[in-house]
Amino acid sequence: MNQQRAILDGLRIVEFSAFVAAPTSGLSMAQLGADVIRVDPIGGNIDIGRLPLDRNGRSLYWASLNRGKRSVELDVRSPAGARLMAELITAPGEHGGIFVTNLPVDGELGYEALARRRPDLIMVQLAGSPDGTNALDYTVNCAVGFPLLTGDGRAGPINSVMPAWDVIAAMTIATGLLAAERHRRLTGEGQFVKLALSDVAMATTANLAYVADAQVNGGERRADGNYLYGAYGDSFATADARYLMVVAISDRQWRALMKATGMGDALQAAAGALGHRLDDEAGRYEARELISAFLRPWFARRTLAQIAALFTDRSLLWGPYRTVRQMLDEDPRCSEANPIFRNVEHPGIGTVLTASTPLAFGASPRVPPGVAPRLGEHTGAVLADVLGMDAAAIEGLRAAGTIGGGAAGAS
Amino acid sequence: MNQQRAILDGLRIVEFSAFVAAPTSGLSMAQLGADVIRVDPIGGNIDIGRLPLDRNGRSLYWASLNRGKRSVELDVRSPAGARLMAELITAPGEHGGIFVTNLPVDGELGYEALARRRPDLIMVQLAGSPDGTNALDYTVNCAVGFPLLTGDGRAGPINSVMPAWDVIAAMTIATGLLAAERHRRLTGEGQFVKLALSDVAMATTANLAYVADAQVNGGERRADGNYLYGAYGDSFATADARYLMVVAISDRQWRALMKATGMGDALQAAAGALGHRLDDEAGRYEARELISAFLRPWFARRTLAQIAALFTDRSLLWGPYRTVRQMLDEDPRCSEANPIFRNVEHPGIGTVLTASTPLAFGASPRVPPGVAPRLGEHTGAVLADVLGMDAAAIEGLRAAGTIGGGAAGAS
Repeated sequence: MNQQRAILDGLRIVEFSAFVAAPTSGLSMAQLGADVIRVDPIGGNIDIGRLPLDRNGRSLYWASLNRGKRSVELDVRSPAGARLMAELITAPGEHGGIFVTNLPVDGELGYEALARRRPDLIMVQLAGSPDGTNALDYTVNCAVGFPLLTGDGRAGPINSVMPAWDVIAAMTIATGLLAAERHRRLTGEGQFVKLALSDVAMATTANLAYVADAQVNGGERRADGNYLYGAYGDSFATADARYLMVVAISDRQWRALMKATGMGDALQAAAGALGHRLDDEAGRYEARELISAFLRPWFARRTLAQIAALFTDRSLLWGPYRTVRQMLDEDPRCSEANPIFRNVEHPGIGTVLTASTPLAFGASPRVPPGVAPRLGEHTGAVLADVLGMDAAAIEGLRAAGTIGGGAAGAS
Repeated sequence: MNQQRAILDGLRIVEFSAFVAAPTSGLSMAQLGADVIRVDPIGGNIDIGRLPLDRNGRSLYWASLNRGKRSVELDVRSPAGARLMAELITAPGEHGGIFVTNLPVDGELGYEALARRRPDLIMVQLAGSPDGTNALDYTVNCAVGFPLLTGDGRAGPINSVMPAWDVIAAMTIATGLLAAERHRRLTGEGQFVKLALSDVAMATTANLAYVADAQVNGGERRADGNYLYGAYGDSFATADARYLMVVAISDRQWRALMKATGMGDALQAAAGALGHRLDDEAGRYEARELISAFLRPWFARRTLAQIAALFTDRSLLWGPYRTVRQMLDEDPRCSEANPIFRNVEHPGIGTVLTASTPLAFGASPRVPPGVAPRLGEHTGAVLADVLGMDAAAIEGLRAAGTIGGGAAGAS
């Protein structure tokens, strides 16, 4: 094992981005050791002040999604700034020449112009919809059916708070980028890789068999509360006003649940009376309301701690619902007991439990979680390092207003 | 452009899996052209009959998540079957020696034993929790806070129907696999790559600044209906009982929304009276209830078609809520007008609009969406092709009950 080099050490990616998906793709690459250079316009991009903020008005969102990246601040709308950014993207080096963006770019920053500078360029561009119209997680999620399948269906659609399509798109960008880099290593050929957020969502919805179910069976799935689809699973309130989720997919999990709750015989008799079969997952799915009717009072009479003390069989598949605060207070998986998390001092913000990549590579060291740069912090350093500029040239660009980053940025 | 070869053409991956995350990772690789060989026990793994089913009882879920893979059926619990699977995983070839699993494996199929057969093996293993205890999307999702932030918070937690953590884990597996394959290409070294579903969920929750918000600001975010967090966005019912989502993050999107609805002046006056500022996203987020109170009657008086006719400004960020059926009927992005989708005849099931990868590679052709194999369909062919076995040897294994796949499987 090479103790010194993270798995993507040396790979250089220029990111020109805003919001969630593209910055998260860059974060995932930085967490694997890549040198991710986020380029922003002077003063920052549209997401620079995105909520939540800390007490001093600094965006915790920006500070989280840009961890471990280098920040370059330049006047991207000026010809000189756009040219400088094109030079950064296309600078030589077998591990460079990779550009990720979710923003509309053209002229010097379009693929054609960039590929003239460096023919083996890899450029990955995320759009909202394939026709180039804008879309974001919420306006994509409403299009693919899930909000109308969430909750009990009585109160109209229920949005997902977690931007799943953004995060899936981020990891799809990472996959596409590494696939293209592999192709370049094997053939010398670069390429333009495109994807759209709506395609990510619609392809996933189809992959999960929602489209096949609608087309082949002609029906339409309905909102079904907190039941798991296709096997048995439901949520329950406890005596101390907590909630937990219980799932039984395998027969072993089901037997463990019946044993732990002592409900097996009574439930079997009731199921028999109604013609339900409880000996396979489809039968238990059919009988889900009956099963929950039996289990609900059992959980309601016990506290979460009492249930946890009874639910020690490792075949049981269950967990308490937690708020983020409760996750931090109660779950050792979200603490420094887990090697993916470290308490990190974020300058000006405070100490935050901060994640590295969830991937553990046996032959490559984990990159400790980093902090986000100040906007423009590495402007001078990146121009010196990647483009070989001397201090005088950098000062000239700063005096002309082509770059930001201030005096500290040149260090 | 090489017209003949998909981006991952030639890469050979053995998948030993069940449920959503690991099969989806294999699907994503197959969609990029990799030769993904799914190995199942005789009769199939635990997910072989997972709902939804078609009228003949065939799992649409299995048929969707295993498209474009080759299927090998063997008695994995017997020593001879385990040895055969180990030979498939570790067969020579610079593009082979890659194993993905979400199942507990040991003995001949553990990393140590496999790496003795092939030292440059890449093995990616997904667990539920880092301590090896089981967990699935529902029991992970309840742990990270989102169900208690979904909906209006009055009726307890609301589960996500879309298994986001599974799909994010799938694409994290794909990213980790390609990163490890890059490392092997550069150094010759293989490795064991591990991840846990709960780590994927908890790291993502932390990355999205939920942990920082709780730790630095001390508060706890609350369920907030269908409002977007941090800017303006909400859902509305129309006169014809449809719903739509409207978002304004940028000032340009906000101005377009005010112009299209004609609400600007009246809303500005009301906001002024209440001390709200509408000129930036944080101010609009503060004023979200007032804004929705103004917009709700406007939408309620108009049909979805009338609104669509008025909402032609491309700066407007909005979309109708659709069921899966409505997505198929109304949205051209989910049709053959979109090159990622093709109507595909799935043998024995029928015609289904089927997705290829959402990634478009400029220098590599798109792999047309395939169909799932019959269980064991390629057992004989894979043993011949990867291990060089002759027909007599394959028949011997079949006679001994070590492999399945029947006569058709040998073709």
